[in-house]
Amino acid sequence: MQQAEIIAVGSELLLGGRLDTNSLFLTEGLASAGIEVRFKSVVGDEEADIVEAIRTASGRVKVIVLTGGLGPTLDDRTRQAVARATRRPLRRRAEAFEGMRRRLAVWGRTPTRAQLRQVLIPSGAEVLPNPVGSAPGFYLKWKGCVLVALPGVPSEAKQMFAVAVAPKLAREAAARGRQGRIARRMLQTFGLAESDLDLRLKGLVRAESGVRLGLLASPLGVTVSLTTCGIGLIADSKGERVLDRLVKAIRKRVGAYVYGEGDETMEEVVGRHLASGGLTLAVAESCTGGLIGHRLTQVPGSSTYLDRVAVCYSDQAKIELLGVPKLLVRRHGAVSPEVAAVMARGIRLRSHAGVGLSVTGIAGPGGGTAQKPVGLVYVGLNAGRNSQSSLIREFRFHGDRHSIKLRASQAALELLRQWLVRRGSRARS
Amino acid sequence: MQQAEIIAVGSELLLGGRLDTNSLFLTEGLASAGIEVRFKSVVGDEEADIVEAIRTASGRVKVIVLTGGLGPTLDDRTRQAVARATRRPLRRRAEAFEGMRRRLAVWGRTPTRAQLRQVLIPSGAEVLPNPVGSAPGFYLKWKGCVLVALPGVPSEAKQMFAVAVAPKLAREAAARGRQGRIARRMLQTFGLAESDLDLRLKGLVRAESGVRLGLLASPLGVTVSLTTCGIGLIADSKGERVLDRLVKAIRKRVGAYVYGEGDETMEEVVGRHLASGGLTLAVAESCTGGLIGHRLTQVPGSSTYLDRVAVCYSDQAKIELLGVPKLLVRRHGAVSPEVAAVMARGIRLRSHAGVGLSVTGIAGPGGGTAQKPVGLVYVGLNAGRNSQSSLIREFRFHGDRHSIKLRASQAALELLRQWLVRRGSRARS
Repeated sequence: MQQAEIIAVGSELLLGGRLDTNSLFLTEGLASAGIEVRFKSVVGDEEADIVEAIRTASGRVKVIVLTGGLGPTLDDRTRQAVARATRRPLRRRAEAFEGMRRRLAVWGRTPTRAQLRQVLIPSGAEVLPNPVGSAPGFYLKWKGCVLVALPGVPSEAKQMFAVAVAPKLAREAAARGRQGRIARRMLQTFGLAESDLDLRLKGLVRAESGVRLGLLASPLGVTVSLTTCGIGLIADSKGERVLDRLVKAIRKRVGAYVYGEGDETMEEVVGRHLASGGLTLAVAESCTGGLIGHRLTQVPGSSTYLDRVAVCYSDQAKIELLGVPKLLVRRHGAVSPEVAAVMARGIRLRSHAGVGLSVTGIAGPGGGTAQKPVGLVYVGLNAGRNSQSSLIREFRFHGDRHSIKLRASQAALELLRQWLVRRGSRARS
Repeated sequence: MQQAEIIAVGSELLLGGRLDTNSLFLTEGLASAGIEVRFKSVVGDEEADIVEAIRTASGRVKVIVLTGGLGPTLDDRTRQAVARATRRPLRRRAEAFEGMRRRLAVWGRTPTRAQLRQVLIPSGAEVLPNPVGSAPGFYLKWKGCVLVALPGVPSEAKQMFAVAVAPKLAREAAARGRQGRIARRMLQTFGLAESDLDLRLKGLVRAESGVRLGLLASPLGVTVSLTTCGIGLIADSKGERVLDRLVKAIRKRVGAYVYGEGDETMEEVVGRHLASGGLTLAVAESCTGGLIGHRLTQVPGSSTYLDRVAVCYSDQAKIELLGVPKLLVRRHGAVSPEVAAVMARGIRLRSHAGVGLSVTGIAGPGGGTAQKPVGLVYVGLNAGRNSQSSLIREFRFHGDRHSIKLRASQAALELLRQWLVRRGSRARS
């Protein structure tokens, strides 16, 4: 299998507290062309360091993708570094200039002197037009290696890779008689710890099968990934079939905990169910502070099913906005199954939404007691025309304030998802 | 200046869509010890790749920090790779075993056979105890290089670096007669585009001054950073003085747009002002969907000043929860300065909070028109006992749904911050 290195250029990636996110979609894109990313590197704007990184990469992989350092300022040294590392002098290229001129003309501008630096391209390289910004990229074959240079701006790098680079890499793989691609599946789970999941999936994927099983835990759950790679390329259709079988086997063992496939989020899954069921939702949040609303509204079109969210941080707000009786709060405390139940019911009745969802808990770091420690969370769901009673779940989460908020929001959305799935299958039967 | 490379080990960092976040605090920590991070690398779990990465690093830097690959499974190969790269065979170390035994005893457990792999340490290395998890790290001097291996779990790596590694590196720097450290300042701005900020700061930092000026744009604004590095180490106190002067000069030019220093967030700044002013806040959100509430409640102790947040996604919710007149919505549309004003006033009056903050806008991708395009956002603020009128600001943001939500939340919080600052200076005068 062909192997690649991704080199991200930019001092802000070393010093500025910023991470290289381009490598995420580049890794996926390269995998689709049957190329495995073996190394990722980050260097600053120093030309010598970029040259060193390119030389190191050329000694260990056949495909090098550089991002960043193609801008118009004197700090942008990727062009010069590639020229030095590959001994291909920079030349002003007419097609690069033409692309930039046309792109700027749309905005009523002409290239500045600084921008003209961007049309200097190593000789022998193919110019990659930039449909979004001013910096062109390039594609260079050199000593049996392919070297691709793309801008650092994610939207530009993404488009240029998809439009110009990926098809080229796929054609070259085909020309070498290698039409394989790395196949990949992901299952999103919530509610089982990583170690329990590991135990339940034991023995499912044999080491010699050419498939790699990965578990990745986060506050939103554990992602199970299957990748055909490592031991040797499996031809397209065979790899896909092997993974299909494994996905089925995994679902058999832990299906109740699987909420989505691929990179689908919980809020997308829940939104899909609400939309197809013609249901509306209202949410009463306490310790999650608006996070559930924020997540639900990340999905385009969520206004068709999300009616309102009431974040009741104070007890007074719970009483006024949700009709939670003062006595109930005094007797059981704001963090109690009783209050979670009344919150879900209150928000549903007042909004006339189809479903009411509630969360109350202690996100910490302060506010915990021996009986009600930090991380104690109740989620509630109320639905149905005359429903007096709400579904309630209790959780005891670990972690800092942010992860407790994340876990609590996920637990509430998962309760809603399970209810929506049950409702869907009742409706079908 | 001493130079370092950070190597993150783990296939999930290549294939799993996960980024190496440990390098962020390691970079800061190394800078405090006067060590500049020159390269960052990521490799998978293959032992040969880890060996290759260590050898490459040892050829270009003097300090190598490895994270990850110290776990108990057979996939964890960092120990073996270091042993191979440095030719220091692994030995079972009593102090590593003792630390692990004591750590597990707290949880009522004894080391498993797999966990015993973790007490194998390259000979000649110093064992770094892990106060949080089971995997010890180690610190090895080899061929004039320092090699540090830490677990990949961020909470463990962070503590071990702070407690055991940073003081050691500082002592060694002192022994070499180098007590300097890289000084660093950050200013957080909102409201000026990166290019405008660049123009306004032109000529402020001369290339030969030994200070690097960086601008880093995101939907939350532009971070201006100043770092003493690159040209040569400036002694502690001198570097700090130079940066203090530059911070003052920057504030003179763009002070109105600076909302915070260091890595302070807008929600922390606003929270500090609210707490010190003894004020309470209520928020009415529409297009931001709960994001403002989520951000405000990320700050521990926010329950003392945040009363409630009403996310009114439907027009009906705006009418019911905020008392926005139906006619007003019909006449001006939900996204209008008129509705933003009434939302801010409505949430304040109903909650009896000191300040009411509102946002209404079109986050897209759908829902835009020629008059009211995607990205049009109004934010409003209402305060004072008998205040009929609200402060209103109009914005036209670019970007996708998520960045429009982020920008809108930041614009609302910035309006609140400016009002709080003015109120504070009136109170003092």
